Amino acid sequence: MFMYLDCVPCLLRQTLSAVRMAGDDPSVQHEVVRQVLHILAETDFTRRTPPDMAQWTHRLIRELTGQGDPYRHIKQCSNEVALSMLPALERRIGQSGDPFAAAVRVALAGNIIDFGANHETDVSLKGIETVVEQAFAAPLNSLALESLRAAASSAESILYICDNAGEIAFDRLLIEQLGPHKVTAAVRGGPIINDATLEDAVAVGLAGLTTVISTGDDLPGVIVSQCNEPFQNIFHGADLVIAKGQGNFETLSDIPRNIFFLLKAKCTVAAERIGCEQGDYIILESTRMDDERPQDAPDPDGTVNHQLL
Amino acid sequence: MFMYLDCVPCLLRQTLSAVRMAGDDPSVQHEVVRQVLHILAETDFTRRTPPDMAQWTHRLIRELTGQGDPYRHIKQCSNEVALSMLPALERRIGQSGDPFAAAVRVALAGNIIDFGANHETDVSLKGIETVVEQAFAAPLNSLALESLRAAASSAESILYICDNAGEIAFDRLLIEQLGPHKVTAAVRGGPIINDATLEDAVAVGLAGLTTVISTGDDLPGVIVSQCNEPFQNIFHGADLVIAKGQGNFETLSDIPRNIFFLLKAKCTVAAERIGCEQGDYIILESTRMDDERPQDAPDPDGTVNHQLL
Repeated sequence: MFMYLDCVPCLLRQTLSAVRMAGDDPSVQHEVVRQVLHILAETDFTRRTPPDMAQWTHRLIRELTGQGDPYRHIKQCSNEVALSMLPALERRIGQSGDPFAAAVRVALAGNIIDFGANHETDVSLKGIETVVEQAFAAPLNSLALESLRAAASSAESILYICDNAGEIAFDRLLIEQLGPHKVTAAVRGGPIINDATLEDAVAVGLAGLTTVISTGDDLPGVIVSQCNEPFQNIFHGADLVIAKGQGNFETLSDIPRNIFFLLKAKCTVAAERIGCEQGDYIILESTRMDDERPQDAPDPDGTVNHQLL
Repeated sequence: MFMYLDCVPCLLRQTLSAVRMAGDDPSVQHEVVRQVLHILAETDFTRRTPPDMAQWTHRLIRELTGQGDPYRHIKQCSNEVALSMLPALERRIGQSGDPFAAAVRVALAGNIIDFGANHETDVSLKGIETVVEQAFAAPLNSLALESLRAAASSAESILYICDNAGEIAFDRLLIEQLGPHKVTAAVRGGPIINDATLEDAVAVGLAGLTTVISTGDDLPGVIVSQCNEPFQNIFHGADLVIAKGQGNFETLSDIPRNIFFLLKAKCTVAAERIGCEQGDYIILESTRMDDERPQDAPDPDGTVNHQLL
């Protein structure tokens, strides 16, 4: 999903929020905003995804503020709060008539813990508990859920691309349903917003449950060609790819590879692209269009059909 | 009030909204956004007010879209809706125990009709009726109200700087309380967002009630040195200046001249500058600080003390 014009003010709003979190020097804040304005003015939006631009702006913020990981404290807090909820959520999933569906809902609820997208996150215990209840009450597309269940059941290898710190504690519960021995979980290759890195995977016990790898890239999403070779091999070779969150959706939604996206649609632009309402909890399968194209059509080079199953 | 960094994403959001209202050519929309990014990247925010930047962006939009007055239809609708409410509002003011205070509340309610600031406007009859009820129920600073009443009573000449179309119909009712023979009402010198121009002053009957002049400038506020000579003379010579809305506040709040601002604080930045909550209805008197400065202090060149009386 390439940049919409609406992403421009949103990216600037995010930049301002991030640079203020990284420090309180007004001259540095001005300089960051000015440089982001310059690069945006020179950018061909039709060829850049929002996470691609966010990678650039957050690298700039880290460089100019000297803060290598401005969201570190927030990530630690998110992990701690999410971890404290795990025993109760495990019991709830275990007592559910459909533990797989319940674990999907918990994983979707976890996607609310986000400091990049266009929404405010309440990462207090009470705030996240409220979100979990919303996710359990929200309408979910049952066809998409069954398609995911079937794909997970038949897959011998699953790549699970994580999104945010805190959220990855909840992901543990879905990975337990998928079968931890079949799963490789991928996290970001370096600090970027509050996205989960290897440090967070260790902190929430994901690294002890399943194989965890890094994308090798500090992008809040996945541009496959920028990732390290192990990630690329698993991405192309896995029987099933599950990608959490809007950043992964925005970067992977035009890739010629079937992917199940699990996310909360946090802004109007993503909702428009998906064909849902802002705030919806989404299970979305991308399916290659190749079969429907004429034989002599040029290579689609990433063109896929997004089905809200 | 000079630009805050928060004004940057807001200005881009406004730009996008305005260029979409002016036409649906994506290449023009991209070009406008790109040029605004360029000019913002080169701007010294500490020396520009938000209306100053908005004048530039809206001139660019009008030039590149070929639409001389994109908000014309919205302004006409706003005028018609506001006019249809006048008889009932006149009765309400007339039957009030304090007609002056009631007229101030009506004028404040009218300030909700705004397509520039960071809020959505419901200009339907029902929407504006709801706002009027809110304005009648809202807390108002009684000291500021009494100060305005006293200043209006003793003034022989009053400059009333209008803000938006629609709103100026409501302003009629306050001008009737002030004494139309004492008042000169000023509107913008050309189309800018949904700000009122001479055309709107005629449409709502303001031109038949009192003297109406133009600032001579298509700025959504007032930079006095950019205005025509008649406006400048009246601005400096009037016993009392009343300025409606956030755009007038943002441009006139640092002028060494006592002014009564009547506005709804529509964004967090203006609210912070005023020292109120976003959404508050404000009567604010700017008072020169000169008397309180030491004798040897340099000329304040516009520095004023804003008192929430």
